[in-house]
Amino acid sequence: MNVLIVHAHPEPQSFNTAMKSLAAETLTAAGHTVEVSDLYAMGWNPVASDADFSGRKNPEYMTYALEQRHGYESGSIAPDIAAEIEKLKRADLVIFNFPLFWFSVPAMMKGWFDRVLVSGLCYGGMRFYDQGGLKGKKALVTLTLGGREHMFGPEAIHGELVDGMLRPILRGTLAYTGMTVLPPFIGYHIPYLKPEARAQILEEYKAYLGRLDELEPLRFPRMEEFDAKLFPLPKG
Amino acid sequence: MNVLIVHAHPEPQSFNTAMKSLAAETLTAAGHTVEVSDLYAMGWNPVASDADFSGRKNPEYMTYALEQRHGYESGSIAPDIAAEIEKLKRADLVIFNFPLFWFSVPAMMKGWFDRVLVSGLCYGGMRFYDQGGLKGKKALVTLTLGGREHMFGPEAIHGELVDGMLRPILRGTLAYTGMTVLPPFIGYHIPYLKPEARAQILEEYKAYLGRLDELEPLRFPRMEEFDAKLFPLPKG
Repeated sequence: MNVLIVHAHPEPQSFNTAMKSLAAETLTAAGHTVEVSDLYAMGWNPVASDADFSGRKNPEYMTYALEQRHGYESGSIAPDIAAEIEKLKRADLVIFNFPLFWFSVPAMMKGWFDRVLVSGLCYGGMRFYDQGGLKGKKALVTLTLGGREHMFGPEAIHGELVDGMLRPILRGTLAYTGMTVLPPFIGYHIPYLKPEARAQILEEYKAYLGRLDELEPLRFPRMEEFDAKLFPLPKG
Repeated sequence: MNVLIVHAHPEPQSFNTAMKSLAAETLTAAGHTVEVSDLYAMGWNPVASDADFSGRKNPEYMTYALEQRHGYESGSIAPDIAAEIEKLKRADLVIFNFPLFWFSVPAMMKGWFDRVLVSGLCYGGMRFYDQGGLKGKKALVTLTLGGREHMFGPEAIHGELVDGMLRPILRGTLAYTGMTVLPPFIGYHIPYLKPEARAQILEEYKAYLGRLDELEPLRFPRMEEFDAKLFPLPKG
C-alpha cells in the first residue's frame, strides 16, 4: 500500500508525534510505502483564501469550492495544495494523526481538509458518500485526548465520541469524500499517564496497525438509499 | 449589551459577510455596543504554536493548554490572542458567523477557538459546562451552507445538524466554556438562491436578532448530574 500520514501536533516531542513516527516505521517495515505530511514541520498554511488560485474562474466573486474545482482542473491551484493533492491521489490509506482540540482537529489540520479536499476531485454533484471521488481509499483517524473513556457514551458527560463529537470528521468529511473509514484509534487521558501506560498504548497502536485489514469499516449512508433530491427512499 | 461578532469568510462580498454587517448594524441601532473580529480582514493567525508564548512555564516541553493558562495569567501570551481575550471578556453576547466548511467552522475560526478560549479563564479543573469560566455570557452561531434543510434530520442523508454535525461546536466548545448557547440561525442553500430569497433570509435574520431575549437556550449537561470523576449520577 501507499500510505499518507497527515500529522498536526505543535510539540515535536509529544506522545502524539511518537504515534506518527511509530506508524511510519511500522508500516514501512511491513513493506508499505509511507509519506508523511507533518503540517507543523512544513509550516502548512491552513487558511483557505483567494491566494490559493493564481487564475480565477470568476475574478469578481470567489466561491471557494468552484475556484477549487477550476484551479485543480486548470493546474492553477496553489503549489502547496497541489503537492498535497498528489500525495492524496497516490495514497491507498490516509492516516490523520492529531490531538483533539475542542473535540475536533487542530486548525492546522482543519485547513488541510478545507484546502486539499477539493471539489471536483473529491466530491461534486451527486458524487459523495459511497459515490465520493476518493472511493477505494481507506481513512484512519488516530487521536489523543485528555479525557477518559468513561466520559464518552450515550449517558456520559460529553455524549458519544465516534458517533457524536467525531461525526463531522468521520462522516461529514472522510466518508463524504467516498473514503472507507476504519474505526479510529483513540489514546485517552494521555497528558496524565505514566510512561509505562503510554508505552502500553504504543504497543496497542502497533498491533492495531498490524490488523488494519481485519477491521470492520464504519457504516455511513449510501446514495442508493436516497432519491435524486436526497430525500430518503422508503426502506426495505 | 456588549456584543462581539467573530466572523470568518474569505469573500468580502458574500451573503455570509452581509449577515455579519446586518447584525452589527441591527444591534448597534438597538442600543448595544458591537465589536467585530473579522478574521480574514485582520489576517488572523489560526495556528496554535509555541510562538504564542513569550515566556514559557516549561521551556523543554509544550503542553499547549498549560502554557495558555500560564501565558494568560502572567501576561506573556501573544498580543493578538490577548486582544481577542479582552474583547471576549467585555462581551455579554458572542456571535460566531461563518460558512459551514466540512460540516464545521473554517480553519480560520477553528484557530480562534484553539488560541483564544484559553485554559484558566474559560475552563479548567471541574469548571466546564454550566460551571465553565464564561458562565453568564451568551453565544449565538449564525451560519450559511449549501445544503437544504431536508438533508438534515434523524433519517436524512447527513443526520442531525444542530444535535449532530454541530455538536463539537455548540456543546463541545461553546457550552463547554459555560456560555449559554442560543439556537443557531441557519441560512440553507445560500449559493443557489435568487436575490429575493436571500433578501428574505436577511429579513428573517434581522427579526431573529430582535427577539434574542425570547429564545430558549439549548440544553446541555449540568455538572451536578455527574460525580467527582465525571461518572453520571443516578437520575431522579
